[in-house]
Amino acid sequence: MAFTPPVTEQRFVLDHVAGIGELAKTDRFAAASDDVVDAVLEGAGQFAAGEWAPLDRAGDTVGAKLTDKGVVMPDGFREAYRGYVDGGWGTIGSPEAFGGQGLPYALATAVLETLGSANMAFALAPTLTVGAIEALTHHGTPEQQQAYLPHLATGDWTGTMNLTEPQAGSDVGALKTRAEPRGDGSWSIKGTKIYISFGDHDMADNIVHLVLARTPDAPAGTKGLSLFLVPKYRLDADGRPGAFNDINVVSIEHKMGLHGSPTCVLSYGDNDDCRGELIGAEGGGIAAMFTMMNNARLNVGLEGVQVAERATQRAVAYARERIQSARAGSPSREPVAIIEHPDVRRMLMRMKAQTQAARALVYYAAGQVDRANLGDADAKKRLDLLTPLAKAHGTDLGCEVADIGIQVHGGMGYIEETGASQHFRDARVTRIYEGTNGIQAADLVGRKLSMDNGATLNALIADMRGGAEADGLRDLINACETVGRNLLSVDIEDRLAASYPFLTMLSVAVCGWLMEREAKAADALGDSDFAQMKKAAARFYVGQIVPEALGLKAAAMAPADPLYAVGAETFAA
Amino acid sequence: MAFTPPVTEQRFVLDHVAGIGELAKTDRFAAASDDVVDAVLEGAGQFAAGEWAPLDRAGDTVGAKLTDKGVVMPDGFREAYRGYVDGGWGTIGSPEAFGGQGLPYALATAVLETLGSANMAFALAPTLTVGAIEALTHHGTPEQQQAYLPHLATGDWTGTMNLTEPQAGSDVGALKTRAEPRGDGSWSIKGTKIYISFGDHDMADNIVHLVLARTPDAPAGTKGLSLFLVPKYRLDADGRPGAFNDINVVSIEHKMGLHGSPTCVLSYGDNDDCRGELIGAEGGGIAAMFTMMNNARLNVGLEGVQVAERATQRAVAYARERIQSARAGSPSREPVAIIEHPDVRRMLMRMKAQTQAARALVYYAAGQVDRANLGDADAKKRLDLLTPLAKAHGTDLGCEVADIGIQVHGGMGYIEETGASQHFRDARVTRIYEGTNGIQAADLVGRKLSMDNGATLNALIADMRGGAEADGLRDLINACETVGRNLLSVDIEDRLAASYPFLTMLSVAVCGWLMEREAKAADALGDSDFAQMKKAAARFYVGQIVPEALGLKAAAMAPADPLYAVGAETFAA
Repeated sequence: MAFTPPVTEQRFVLDHVAGIGELAKTDRFAAASDDVVDAVLEGAGQFAAGEWAPLDRAGDTVGAKLTDKGVVMPDGFREAYRGYVDGGWGTIGSPEAFGGQGLPYALATAVLETLGSANMAFALAPTLTVGAIEALTHHGTPEQQQAYLPHLATGDWTGTMNLTEPQAGSDVGALKTRAEPRGDGSWSIKGTKIYISFGDHDMADNIVHLVLARTPDAPAGTKGLSLFLVPKYRLDADGRPGAFNDINVVSIEHKMGLHGSPTCVLSYGDNDDCRGELIGAEGGGIAAMFTMMNNARLNVGLEGVQVAERATQRAVAYARERIQSARAGSPSREPVAIIEHPDVRRMLMRMKAQTQAARALVYYAAGQVDRANLGDADAKKRLDLLTPLAKAHGTDLGCEVADIGIQVHGGMGYIEETGASQHFRDARVTRIYEGTNGIQAADLVGRKLSMDNGATLNALIADMRGGAEADGLRDLINACETVGRNLLSVDIEDRLAASYPFLTMLSVAVCGWLMEREAKAADALGDSDFAQMKKAAARFYVGQIVPEALGLKAAAMAPADPLYAVGAETFAA
Repeated sequence: MAFTPPVTEQRFVLDHVAGIGELAKTDRFAAASDDVVDAVLEGAGQFAAGEWAPLDRAGDTVGAKLTDKGVVMPDGFREAYRGYVDGGWGTIGSPEAFGGQGLPYALATAVLETLGSANMAFALAPTLTVGAIEALTHHGTPEQQQAYLPHLATGDWTGTMNLTEPQAGSDVGALKTRAEPRGDGSWSIKGTKIYISFGDHDMADNIVHLVLARTPDAPAGTKGLSLFLVPKYRLDADGRPGAFNDINVVSIEHKMGLHGSPTCVLSYGDNDDCRGELIGAEGGGIAAMFTMMNNARLNVGLEGVQVAERATQRAVAYARERIQSARAGSPSREPVAIIEHPDVRRMLMRMKAQTQAARALVYYAAGQVDRANLGDADAKKRLDLLTPLAKAHGTDLGCEVADIGIQVHGGMGYIEETGASQHFRDARVTRIYEGTNGIQAADLVGRKLSMDNGATLNALIADMRGGAEADGLRDLINACETVGRNLLSVDIEDRLAASYPFLTMLSVAVCGWLMEREAKAADALGDSDFAQMKKAAARFYVGQIVPEALGLKAAAMAPADPLYAVGAETFAA
């Protein structure tokens, strides 16, 4: 099924939620004029729909393959990636000093959304590259930046993040990969990393791995970790990819979905000949990693939007074409398109509303990235608070919408050729990688809630309360305040036990607040189809989804106690 | 991972929810003594864990294949099916007159649960056979029963249900398959049927297809449909499988899961040589189909229990083994098994509670089948009301639990070799087939709610109110009453728009009521591990899951209006 880039919606949300007009008034983002924003959205949409979307299915059915020449992508991916580099689609948000366009992060978010809706697995390559760019921009030396950033900014080279090891998943402090100084300023890297997205492929001339490793005599735990830049090919005297750097692909994982994205097990230094450069300070690996990871988390939340948009388009198209049964209560016995049946209509309305809500949440956070980059300290704090929400709730919604998409298709939804099930399989990992959604919830009630002893949360709640109109939404905001205050007063186990329900409640409150704001803005658009759909989706969201979230209050107020009423061994009884 | 049949739990729920002791006091079910029930549960568990569970993964990875000799099952399935027939595991609930054991349907339900937890795809073969047995038992002539039932009861032959055609999914009235009288009392069948589970395979000597078809000059719509028995091989003079009956396998579907269950497209009468027998009256196809389908719906709800049980066992085992991070707030920095972390513990507790809730719901309905068969008219009405709940909510829970199971595994959950993703993929179709869950919700608010103008619902609510103790549960029961009364007063579109939220609310109310009952019964067991887990799960269910369902009240009270605020074409805008 053809993919139609949602440019009207994207522009609308950039305007009314991310506040791109306000950003364009600053010197830094003056280039983000109305015309440029429109041109970027239109151009990215045409490119993604024309070049990337047609490869989505081959990515799933053929998939990336490990050969004796390394990982080989399915036919067409090399050329389509070249088109991405040549079109400058990777450079939107990258620093101008290194060949980027220096446009707002929020706009780059919209472009990445479009790429990922067209081909979610493929879009992981740029997504990871952004992480490497962030790490180098904030922690690299001028020499490192000059050597690598121009190539990463265009996408000529791609980047990866190497955190996980077999014994260390969410527990980064347990990492064992070693880095030893070679005496010439470089480091010898040795160890095995798993779950490396696009850890190898044949689309770019070099791959820049960012690797967390432990230096000699470093303290145990996370404080002993440093970040290293480890290229697949070392740079020669001219700064071009030269000698192979002893990084070997052990295997690629057999995943349930995202087959177009090779998830590699990488072995560094099998022949003791893998060299890396330290990025930032020795022992500063965790701080540097969070620089990479925070934006990566927003971009994973964005994957929720990507898949939700595509799944919704597919389901709507199917429901408008599929003729089945007369409408209940209708005098006519003529069968109608299933979109006319109330429960199907309810599912589609939910898909529309949840997709819009996810987009509002992620774009709102993206707008805070830009404000934080402009030096707004409050925006930075709000971004920190919103990041776990955008990641976890954005991906929860992506999975929910893909799931409903299957249901709308009925039996056809379970047949692979239809395409609905690919979205469902592809989406599922987004709730796991870049910190599981449970880790996001822990981050929310741990570090984020404690920031300023709750002041950042209180500021958000005050803003929401100032804007919210519907009674149900005000009830939910009040409940979030009550729960937040309670969580600050209880011990860490109680907080963690309540973390996920609270994360969902707060996310829905933010989405409801933003959806109401969008509905008001849509009033000014008269009765265009877009405005009507927006208002209907917002009304559904506030009327039906917001009250559901209020149903989580009991869980969010409950202590950890009931979970530990029985011992671990009793769970297997 | 080894499968451990949950025999203690099954026995407990048979006792306290299905009331098997009461059934054993009747003449008809006198054979269901304590010893027999225990022996059946134990024996089925040993057989399923030993013979069927080891084939579950090959069913997924190798799958059923279409060859020029028809559908071939993966290695080991033939022998394991033979073991099922020889062990008499198919005969538990079948009529004694035809070689069955005539034990309660509730006990047969427990046996089928165990088989399906061991190997869900495989268990579809017996599940469908039960439907054919039901149809013949209620609508077949004595000759037809004598010819087919003894072979179906043992499982020597398997059965299928043939409803769907490409143009007719949920709209059965649109079926086109034709049956023409041949003048000798038999009928000539011609047409194409899709989504036929185990429509062909190499495990049994014959396959008995039950086929909905249209007779000449029959009225349009569902009233023109009749049910036909169409064997793969016609019976010879001795009643043995003889001549091939011109039923051809066109293809098997490429499904997201359940690869061990061949889903066939069958073409009847390509050479005008396919013969069938009419089952029941001409034009009585829909009534006969519902006989098959109602129990099949309970058994699909049971598939939710099957997959939930297996996914939970897998997740608990993983979470007890996987060591990762120290416990928050603990003075020790020693990493612990992840089951000790609050959010993981919450997920596992939810899996346990939802699995038990699904089992309680389905077993309770199964107990009503037995009472209805004993002539209890109220039990029949309650069964009719509960059937859509058991099917839809049972499968919703199966999918939810399988989904959480992936999350507990973290990154490993997305890797196929782990096994968690197979449950997730296998489970997804259960919300679609045998009437999508949306169709179940429509059945609930249409036919079932209108029965006796709501008296059956009111009786259930009165029973629940009499038993329920927790305030939250009482609130939910009251809300169900309010919503039910409102739905009876509004038009059909409003009812349908609210159908799914109402179905979920009512299902959770029933589950909460039964879980409270189970917790009380567990009090009598002292502090065994089983009793402690039961009480903890029930407490979690009533304390956290019940309030969530109350959050659906706004949606269940909402009219259809907001869904139709925009036209179908606007959804694509």
